[in-house]
Amino acid sequence: MKPRVDINCDLGESFGRFKIGHDDEIMPFITSANIACGFHAGDPVVMAKTVRLAKENGVAVGAHPGFADLTGFGRRYMELSKEEVVNIVLYQVGALEAFARVAGVDLQHVKPHGALYNAAARNEDYTKAIIEAVYALNPRLVIFALAGSRMARMAEEAGLRVAHEVFVDRAYSPDGSLIPRSVAGAVIEDVSLAAKRAVRIVKEKRVAAVDGHDVEFGKVHTICVHGDTLNAVGLARALREALLASRVEIVPVGTFV
Amino acid sequence: MKPRVDINCDLGESFGRFKIGHDDEIMPFITSANIACGFHAGDPVVMAKTVRLAKENGVAVGAHPGFADLTGFGRRYMELSKEEVVNIVLYQVGALEAFARVAGVDLQHVKPHGALYNAAARNEDYTKAIIEAVYALNPRLVIFALAGSRMARMAEEAGLRVAHEVFVDRAYSPDGSLIPRSVAGAVIEDVSLAAKRAVRIVKEKRVAAVDGHDVEFGKVHTICVHGDTLNAVGLARALREALLASRVEIVPVGTFV
Amino acid sequence: MKPRVDINCDLGESFGRFKIGHDDEIMPFITSANIACGFHAGDPVVMAKTVRLAKENGVAVGAHPGFADLTGFGRRYMELSKEEVVNIVLYQVGALEAFARVAGVDLQHVKPHGALYNAAARNEDYTKAIIEAVYALNPRLVIFALAGSRMARMAEEAGLRVAHEVFVDRAYSPDGSLIPRSVAGAVIEDVSLAAKRAVRIVKEKRVAAVDGHDVEFGKVHTICVHGDTLNAVGLARALREALLASRVEIVPVGTFV
Amino acid sequence: MKPRVDINCDLGESFGRFKIGHDDEIMPFITSANIACGFHAGDPVVMAKTVRLAKENGVAVGAHPGFADLTGFGRRYMELSKEEVVNIVLYQVGALEAFARVAGVDLQHVKPHGALYNAAARNEDYTKAIIEAVYALNPRLVIFALAGSRMARMAEEAGLRVAHEVFVDRAYSPDGSLIPRSVAGAVIEDVSLAAKRAVRIVKEKRVAAVDGHDVEFGKVHTICVHGDTLNAVGLARALREALLASRVEIVPVGTFV
Repeated sequence: MKPRVDINCDLGESFGRFKIGHDDEIMPFITSANIACGFHAGDPVVMAKTVRLAKENGVAVGAHPGFADLTGFGRRYMELSKEEVVNIVLYQVGALEAFARVAGVDLQHVKPHGALYNAAARNEDYTKAIIEAVYALNPRLVIFALAGSRMARMAEEAGLRVAHEVFVDRAYSPDGSLIPRSVAGAVIEDVSLAAKRAVRIVKEKRVAAVDGHDVEFGKVHTICVHGDTLNAVGLARALREALLASRVEIVPVGTFV
Repeated sequence: MKPRVDINCDLGESFGRFKIGHDDEIMPFITSANIACGFHAGDPVVMAKTVRLAKENGVAVGAHPGFADLTGFGRRYMELSKEEVVNIVLYQVGALEAFARVAGVDLQHVKPHGALYNAAARNEDYTKAIIEAVYALNPRLVIFALAGSRMARMAEEAGLRVAHEVFVDRAYSPDGSLIPRSVAGAVIEDVSLAAKRAVRIVKEKRVAAVDGHDVEFGKVHTICVHGDTLNAVGLARALREALLASRVEIVPVGTFV
Repeated sequence: MKPRVDINCDLGESFGRFKIGHDDEIMPFITSANIACGFHAGDPVVMAKTVRLAKENGVAVGAHPGFADLTGFGRRYMELSKEEVVNIVLYQVGALEAFARVAGVDLQHVKPHGALYNAAARNEDYTKAIIEAVYALNPRLVIFALAGSRMARMAEEAGLRVAHEVFVDRAYSPDGSLIPRSVAGAVIEDVSLAAKRAVRIVKEKRVAAVDGHDVEFGKVHTICVHGDTLNAVGLARALREALLASRVEIVPVGTFV
Repeated sequence: MKPRVDINCDLGESFGRFKIGHDDEIMPFITSANIACGFHAGDPVVMAKTVRLAKENGVAVGAHPGFADLTGFGRRYMELSKEEVVNIVLYQVGALEAFARVAGVDLQHVKPHGALYNAAARNEDYTKAIIEAVYALNPRLVIFALAGSRMARMAEEAGLRVAHEVFVDRAYSPDGSLIPRSVAGAVIEDVSLAAKRAVRIVKEKRVAAVDGHDVEFGKVHTICVHGDTLNAVGLARALREALLASRVEIVPVGTFV
């Protein structure tokens, strides 16, 4: 069987007259769209449009819930109770699901956004809250988590389908965590290098960490492309071409996890 | 067959530490809860609690979407495009539906709130937008509309189940519209008088207008009790007792429209 | 004495990671900045930066208060009480004034934004509320109003300094009102034509209306350039060059009204 | 000279139709009002009313800026950059100052609210940001800080007037910090006991900590009464009576620091 992988991207991040991203251009290159749900980005009109655009492009639709912090784009940590986290996730995923249903598509996945994704990795209350919310809503939803992370393991133990996610344009620590963006060299801007890393990660389940050793991944299901960076479209295209050239099948993660 | 009617009330209007209403006390007397969806009132934690409270009391759950105006409690008109109205309704109903699903209850109805309810009565774009959104989400949802109104008729023509709604503590114009709250005497504060009006409205489908003539209603399905008024609990209790004493059955509107 | 005019532009409309406008590029060509105050656009960090940028460019600073509607960018009418309008204006102007004071500049003016500017022209309660708020805060503030409008007259009668504002890239009705943007031809996209109109408006206090007749202005103090349109920088530059070539002095409006 | 102290209370915490507190009743017993500025509580209409109410009662007016988190009432920590903290403080204090000016009163002080007050105590970036913002706006403003805290010392070193604040209804650790509310016994609900503690704190600059030893305060300027607790009015009244009976003068803190 050919190796398979999904390519995901954060989309629908515009808000009213405030435009972010290049959704139209990037859709042809990806297979899963993480759609902002109005708390950190996105608004009801943008959500409706983005779901339709994903459908037209055969891209699977996922909810991308975040902290209620539009000013900070959901990138500023907020100290919430577990009950609050459960309920902001339910609220946002429910809202997006309405647009999916009206467009005639099923919701494939949930990927927490920004500081909520990071909090889920560090703070067990957040991890549990997110897993609990997603499972309660629909145990068939796929949840996205950093490949090999505690979050991924806990979600699997809870009975959820998990998409192990890798970042091909980010430097890795030897322990499999990402080097923070604030560190020089944390972001790999050379698109062809990123594409090469992608092929190796998918085919060998390994990537070179910053210390030269390889990080090994037990599972690799989806590659994240950041929609708001300048060369996101270029990266998505290069990734796609390199993967296809290496006989990797690129399909929505919900079809194979 | 005994005559039947539903009693509905706006609930879940608290927001964070800001408390509004007496949800616990009023639940035993009503059959349908219109739950705020976070735009004009309510927040995710409050929504979750209110849905559970409704379930425990055997009260049917409905979404109560409003304008995105927490400061104005959704009572200030906002000039939105039809597309914006469709999508703020989809968003809010979807969000509430997530809490309903997790609590194991079906969403029974949608009732627009405050200035959105009024705009739906006056502005055909708003009427159409709300009907279109609700129908698209789920054509089995009941929509609440002023008894005999254009909104009610248009929703029926669109194929929705409509709950014709009456207000027993409000004065009516001869044409069946409500006297605005700002007019002296518009609100009937005598609970026993309101209860008597309720019985007549349900049994005879008539109520005395301010000019002494009767307003006739083609259909009467649900009576609105305002949860945030001081004597809401008293009114709900008096209503219930008077209706039961008159052999009217009080059941959720979704069971009979 | 040489004729004088001010050129104003809406600036500081970005919000968090959401970028709008080309503030850096347009500053050198204008003399008054209308800075968004966080309700329809702008946030505290953006406001601080924009005030500093204006100061560095010798551009006078004004507050640009709007409706509390970030989703609608303050362009959707909201039905507020007079008391609410007074207080949202006080709040926003006060907030901007803090940044001006810290930057060591005086607040020159107040220009209502979008739907609030339009409401001020149509609804006397809004007109009075805005005038009352600005006067109460500081009777030396300049208020911007459509040249020759009732708003301009009422503000003058109230004792405020008024900047009569013209739009050189917009078509005028014979009565001096602007043709709505939704009408074809309402926006003049030919920058050199707009510049010519500007020179005539400033020197002759006249402009050709859509019916061929001239609209006459009693006073012309400031020309609006929209910062968020594609050719705003081009328009501002062309305006500036044409006016200077015609020996018009371009200075902040606070120096001559 | 008689000993002097100020009594402060958080006020103006209502928001639209959401009512919090008993502002009318508590005003006669206090000397400084910390008025919410619209981010965690309060809205422009409420701010205007609260400033006028304070003036009518001869109560000094202060700004009570918080995190932009209405849902969490400003009690949830948010991870902001120093620049963000500086600017949210400037924004909110500026907004409140507009209402003070229009009412004809001077702004006396700034007291950070909730999680921002706590962050200022723990995180030096927050401490510096708040001090920097207040000083830049007006170096004569009084800043409130926990008696004897690093925040108090740093503000004094920066040249600000500092009100050393004590809590007479809260249990103290031997090191002078407050026992967290979540600990049993952290809140002293016996009003007469709190009043006795107040007298001793003011006259002797000491209070018994939970371990029986005394905490000594270098300075004590103001006593905090929480406006939203059930017995806030009772506590304020008891405090006032006990202090006056002990010949302590109760005056706004701006008159003596």
